[in-house]
Amino acid sequence: MMGEFNLINKYFVDRQAQRKDVILAAGDDCALVEMPENVSIAISTDTLVAGTHFLADAPAAWVAHKALASNLSDLAAMGATPAWVSLALTMPEPDEAWLAPFCSAFFDLADYFGVQLIGGDTTKGPLSITLTVQGFVPKEQALRRSGARVGDWVYVTGELGDSQAGLDVVLDPNKSTKPFAQELLYRHFHATPRVLVGQAMLPYASAAIDISDGLISDIQHILTASHVGVSLDVDALPLSKELIQFVDDKPTAQQYALTSGEEYELCFTVPEEHKGAVDTATAHCGVQVTCIGQIRPQDHFELHASGEPLDWSVSGYDHFKES
Amino acid sequence: MMGEFNLINKYFVDRQAQRKDVILAAGDDCALVEMPENVSIAISTDTLVAGTHFLADAPAAWVAHKALASNLSDLAAMGATPAWVSLALTMPEPDEAWLAPFCSAFFDLADYFGVQLIGGDTTKGPLSITLTVQGFVPKEQALRRSGARVGDWVYVTGELGDSQAGLDVVLDPNKSTKPFAQELLYRHFHATPRVLVGQAMLPYASAAIDISDGLISDIQHILTASHVGVSLDVDALPLSKELIQFVDDKPTAQQYALTSGEEYELCFTVPEEHKGAVDTATAHCGVQVTCIGQIRPQDHFELHASGEPLDWSVSGYDHFKES
Repeated sequence: MMGEFNLINKYFVDRQAQRKDVILAAGDDCALVEMPENVSIAISTDTLVAGTHFLADAPAAWVAHKALASNLSDLAAMGATPAWVSLALTMPEPDEAWLAPFCSAFFDLADYFGVQLIGGDTTKGPLSITLTVQGFVPKEQALRRSGARVGDWVYVTGELGDSQAGLDVVLDPNKSTKPFAQELLYRHFHATPRVLVGQAMLPYASAAIDISDGLISDIQHILTASHVGVSLDVDALPLSKELIQFVDDKPTAQQYALTSGEEYELCFTVPEEHKGAVDTATAHCGVQVTCIGQIRPQDHFELHASGEPLDWSVSGYDHFKES
Repeated sequence: MMGEFNLINKYFVDRQAQRKDVILAAGDDCALVEMPENVSIAISTDTLVAGTHFLADAPAAWVAHKALASNLSDLAAMGATPAWVSLALTMPEPDEAWLAPFCSAFFDLADYFGVQLIGGDTTKGPLSITLTVQGFVPKEQALRRSGARVGDWVYVTGELGDSQAGLDVVLDPNKSTKPFAQELLYRHFHATPRVLVGQAMLPYASAAIDISDGLISDIQHILTASHVGVSLDVDALPLSKELIQFVDDKPTAQQYALTSGEEYELCFTVPEEHKGAVDTATAHCGVQVTCIGQIRPQDHFELHASGEPLDWSVSGYDHFKES
């Protein structure tokens, strides 16, 4: 069994190239970083707890990916460029068989986005991971939830609903024999944070959020902050063929797409005059971008399919839901 | 029982004055902040876990103070001025009887140092608190562990050992009837981060660290990073009269002072030519500053009392100590 300091040195120190703006990473009381001019810093914190956000026996590499991806997704939703991350890791014992794949996957994803680990804490206790990521966004240009206007178009990235299907497999092993169960399980843990789309749409979008609690729940935050309503075309929701086969029924797949949490896709709004520009700017980001509806006046909330209104009652995820 | 969003709104939003450099606090995917010119950002992360760093029935207000104070202490050790904090709070249930005093104490201390809560996460799981604090330090002036030179004087702030005595009371209720047990228990949870001393000594000190794992353990980090040794005068260690009466024996009190963790006092080194300046600069910080020894060449590690060497074997705290 190694002590805390050896553990940190072995698994966390000198694992990455040094960013020019990182003056000091691990190894002192604080990390020290510097910033470019004319940017704001975007900061996001997320915690993943074993038993709440993942099962304790989930593969460590998958947990690492999910933890960092979900946090980078918050930066993406503001159009920010990721820069630094702090990692607070709590574990019952310094389990090297868990740490090695965890760190390997963590640094793979961090390196892909040029994010440097600048510090953190390792403590003893029930397994959980808290990350704080930081990135840059040009001053006064960060995408907020409050900028949507009536008539703006509503977009989402990628395909929706797969994460919920993967969670079904996690929670009910009987579902692991359904079509594409393993693919969907993998996707639940392996979202790609939409950093490139976030940066590409930044000059054109009016509001954005990432889908962590479910489209219906998250878009509500845009509606509330922007004092608007929305009309969503359920037929336009981007669905994977794997999801449709897994649930075996298109309306069910559409309901998954509306409510599935931990998707880490972006939902954003675009004024009519920028619609063409957004389609062009996001064309080279390697991910599908789909228009699924339009912003309406406050208190309008409509779901429709084939031109007909739907009366589905659906809701998203709340960690401490009213009981 | 309230949902997550209501909980955040009730206890965390709009509790503080808005700093001018905070563009956006809670309520979006990220916080947005801006920075003065010509500073580096100092960043520190600490986790407190129930059962590891405090007992689950410790008063919530005390836990809040300890969590934030320990983190601000890291900023103080680099001479940084605190600015922002992110709070990740994991709790089994949204327990308002716990949250109300927790938040009250948290914001009291944050307001005292002008630190604004800019975001975080609330999750369900075993009780723990992870904070990431950020502050400013003039470019290229941050105090590191690596700057101590042979001949520099070694200083500590405050009095040492009280935190360990308080922990004795936490861990063994039989000790609660010893002299000053309640005062020492209180002090264990109520360290004052030495932010003012950190800023005052910044132009004069050569290295610094905060005492979180015990003086002996923490000064070792300075020695290693600076490639030097040290001679400490055990008779010079600042001891409270409460500690001496609690342990009822001066050498025991001195051993407490050498090994007591979670003191959140500063240990720093000062070149001979700045000794007078440090004494003057720290005179108005409202806390005693004591010279306890001198930096020696590498591999020298001496404890002495009344001019005689001591052969005490003492060590500090490691969360995952070799077993």
